[in-house]
Amino acid sequence: MKIQGKQYHTIWLKEGDSSVVEVIDQRKLPFQFKVFQMKTVEDTFFAIKEMVVRGAPLIGVTAAYGMYLALLDLGDGDRESVLKEKAEYLKSSRPTAVNLAFAVDEMLVFILNEIASGNLIERTLEKAHQLKAEEIESGSRIGEFGLKIIEEIYKKKGETVNILTHCNAGWLACIDWGTATAPIYKAHLKGIPVHVWVDETRPRNQGARLTAYELGEEGVPHTVIPDNTGGHLMQHGMVDLVIVGSDRTSITGDVANKIGTYLKALAANDNNVPFYVALPSSTFDWDIEDGVKQIPIEQRDPTEVSEIEGWAEDGIQSVHLIPEKSKVANYGFDVTPARLVTGLITERGVCEADKQSILKLFPEKEFEK
Amino acid sequence: MKIQGKQYHTIWLKEGDSSVVEVIDQRKLPFQFKVFQMKTVEDTFFAIKEMVVRGAPLIGVTAAYGMYLALLDLGDGDRESVLKEKAEYLKSSRPTAVNLAFAVDEMLVFILNEIASGNLIERTLEKAHQLKAEEIESGSRIGEFGLKIIEEIYKKKGETVNILTHCNAGWLACIDWGTATAPIYKAHLKGIPVHVWVDETRPRNQGARLTAYELGEEGVPHTVIPDNTGGHLMQHGMVDLVIVGSDRTSITGDVANKIGTYLKALAANDNNVPFYVALPSSTFDWDIEDGVKQIPIEQRDPTEVSEIEGWAEDGIQSVHLIPEKSKVANYGFDVTPARLVTGLITERGVCEADKQSILKLFPEKEFEK
Repeated sequence: MKIQGKQYHTIWLKEGDSSVVEVIDQRKLPFQFKVFQMKTVEDTFFAIKEMVVRGAPLIGVTAAYGMYLALLDLGDGDRESVLKEKAEYLKSSRPTAVNLAFAVDEMLVFILNEIASGNLIERTLEKAHQLKAEEIESGSRIGEFGLKIIEEIYKKKGETVNILTHCNAGWLACIDWGTATAPIYKAHLKGIPVHVWVDETRPRNQGARLTAYELGEEGVPHTVIPDNTGGHLMQHGMVDLVIVGSDRTSITGDVANKIGTYLKALAANDNNVPFYVALPSSTFDWDIEDGVKQIPIEQRDPTEVSEIEGWAEDGIQSVHLIPEKSKVANYGFDVTPARLVTGLITERGVCEADKQSILKLFPEKEFEK
Repeated sequence: MKIQGKQYHTIWLKEGDSSVVEVIDQRKLPFQFKVFQMKTVEDTFFAIKEMVVRGAPLIGVTAAYGMYLALLDLGDGDRESVLKEKAEYLKSSRPTAVNLAFAVDEMLVFILNEIASGNLIERTLEKAHQLKAEEIESGSRIGEFGLKIIEEIYKKKGETVNILTHCNAGWLACIDWGTATAPIYKAHLKGIPVHVWVDETRPRNQGARLTAYELGEEGVPHTVIPDNTGGHLMQHGMVDLVIVGSDRTSITGDVANKIGTYLKALAANDNNVPFYVALPSSTFDWDIEDGVKQIPIEQRDPTEVSEIEGWAEDGIQSVHLIPEKSKVANYGFDVTPARLVTGLITERGVCEADKQSILKLFPEKEFEK
């Protein structure tokens, strides 16, 4: 997708130096556009943990390149056990996004299988490139399937389709296209009039900072709203469709996503607004049956709530929001039960949020278990 | 209630000068404690509109003193029509809180009835004092009735009662005690262990700024959370009770309150958490049957969303949060349908949120109609 008219992915190999992986540093967006360089697996851990990169698909691909960097950095000792250790280390950087474990394990198995063969480094890099390409392709296909849902609403309504989204499941959370935003971009490109209600998404404001920014750069009409607003809009017929992303979805269709998603799902359900979750299959956790009970919810630094960053006259400034005597809690995600989800938009098509429908789209997962 | 150990009301007559009404300026709390002076009805309009004072009960009482200031300022012309004009002007300062119209009309009727009699100014001031005293008494009684609900939960649970509240329906929104917070203060004073989850309440952060501040000053344990968090907490049994205030409640029990209240009511309902609304009867709109359709929802300045104020190293600083190309919407309130409300805590007792139960507590309203 585009930034100031220039085409970007969120992650790429440095031009002329294949030992350096570069990413868009999302910590200062939209205030500053900066590139962050990763040369080691430790840099990768930092980038994921500190949210230089964020969003489940991008976390997964970044971790894949992290395994490649781990391989580059490998000494002469017991290479297998060091690689396993680096893999565990990378996986510990964030607990909720399942794509992280998925990508790290896939890379680890690949490397260990090929460890004795020639061209290991080149082939591992190819493997990371391949995971990246798959995520782009997934986003594009999710976009096409989701586009049909938007088109159908547009055919019935005959005027601008209002879509609410929470957090950033945009292309910045992925490599290109995005998950929740992919159908929106496809609709916009096709000339279907869309307008996006962008939840600001406290505490880190990924909506106000990232989703608003990328929609603006792509020229998609949108309005930023406080997270409190969606229910009111739905009560008054001002939302035709909700699309969000996911950080982990159980095989039964329970959806972990940015904290507050569950509240929007409840409001959508109460007002008969369709509530869709867009996700590549790398986001499914095939082992979890009860998302609310089993998906671990990350608690993050309280300063993400008590401090906020914005533009001031003399540059970027952080201000403190909470009285001194007050404590703060900061849960990163919540889980929306499958019963509140109208459908899952995956790279293989749209299905209902239940085990049978999910396995019908991904039959190989039944045999793998 | 107390600020730094000193007892305050939110509004009072200036010592030694009965032509000046003073209020706590809530715009800079908790960063600065300042007193704001009102000498004219225009000052009063400003104080309400710009949220120097806020909260339905305090808005009502401030407007009552505003009518007293209007009377002080009256020239020799057609006094009745000027007073009516000032009353309409005051009522236009904010559209959602019904206490405003209620208090202004009550003062106007009083003044017009007494306009020919002696001591009009003294008696009008007495009338404003009386409305203020009634609000204090209402808060205290709401506190006693709500205390019983908390006590009952404590008896069953045997450990700290976790209460979630949204916005500031605390004593700063009233004159003393508060509405939603009154039962909390009463429980705390009685030694019942309570802990309050304080929704930060974007965009103006009345929770993080005012509720957290007043709970801190009174020594009540509390934790500030992003508005997105409550659903997750309720799913995991971490909320025993929700209590919120109201800006206008229909005779059928539909509750207009700060934007986002409806989302918490949905989550409470989905998790069998009792959801109570604490309100003095001045907050009822006896003429409205359908709150969602009929209660006007104020749209406020977008800069309340796009800018935020906090402490920086060199004092209070405002920072900008939204990309330049992005629009913003700012709806002040939403309406929670009566079906999601467990009960209404009024100064006459607790009742269910339906017309029959409400009129049983306020039978005189049936006859007035």
